[in-house]
Amino acid sequence: MGKTRRLCHLLLRFLAFGATLSSVIVMATSHEKAAFFAVSFEAKYTNSPAFKYFVIANSVVTVYGFLVFFLPVESLLWRLVVALDLVLTMLLISSFSAALAIAEVGKKGNSSAAWLPICGSVPKFCDHVTGALIAGFIAVIIYMILLLHSIHSVIDPLLLRKN
Amino acid sequence: MGKTRRLCHLLLRFLAFGATLSSVIVMATSHEKAAFFAVSFEAKYTNSPAFKYFVIANSVVTVYGFLVFFLPVESLLWRLVVALDLVLTMLLISSFSAALAIAEVGKKGNSSAAWLPICGSVPKFCDHVTGALIAGFIAVIIYMILLLHSIHSVIDPLLLRKN
Repeated sequence: MGKTRRLCHLLLRFLAFGATLSSVIVMATSHEKAAFFAVSFEAKYTNSPAFKYFVIANSVVTVYGFLVFFLPVESLLWRLVVALDLVLTMLLISSFSAALAIAEVGKKGNSSAAWLPICGSVPKFCDHVTGALIAGFIAVIIYMILLLHSIHSVIDPLLLRKN
Repeated sequence: MGKTRRLCHLLLRFLAFGATLSSVIVMATSHEKAAFFAVSFEAKYTNSPAFKYFVIANSVVTVYGFLVFFLPVESLLWRLVVALDLVLTMLLISSFSAALAIAEVGKKGNSSAAWLPICGSVPKFCDHVTGALIAGFIAVIIYMILLLHSIHSVIDPLLLRKN
């Protein structure tokens, strides 16, 4: 790997680490008390399995992203990193999609199922969730780039190189 | 590729094709009319953006899975197939997770958001969705196996081969 390339790679990994870390923090700090027709309730991420899954998945990827920084440049373990990148990107995408699906119902409700939107009563909670989802999306995009780049440099799917 | 290996590969692709196709059919044929407190409504997959996304994603992967059968064994396009496998597996996982998150709310509701479960009123619809999700999960697993096998044979992440 060239020096510039390696620097780009590290920068991307650093950004991905920052994105997953902030999505965990923003989602985990999201709670708001509200009264909903005389019934007081507290909106927390732990109320929804999808949001819990999102926090867990992003925490796992944050720890992984942190550990990868300490891998020596010449280590053969970088091969394993490609496979781990793949599995963890899947985890990230899966948790992001699940959380987004629930957030969509929270925002717009679902009239056919008589699920009312809740963002009107807990706007701060909704802002937190939106922020966490944006950070999670950025992380997904960066890991996709890293993964497609690994695949590109190893397999050369578009046959751009001369053999 | 050895003959047995190639046969296994084709068999897996055929199973994945069958799984995505059945998940599309089962989800698309899911509709049930029900009365919910004097209000009659029809439960359809089109009522939820997540279910629509699930059907679209699985249809795309079904068409792709069909086209791959016509690729000659020696074609260099198989390299592109690895990259396409990656992208489409991501799509599949994402749509499966989103649909599962919504189905979970449909089955158990969410007491903090005052979303009631709907499976009591539309049990047939729920059965269809469950069936489609199971087929979708099988497809995800098979594509993951195909992908990890490709990565394994190209990159050898666990360093099992002697160089």
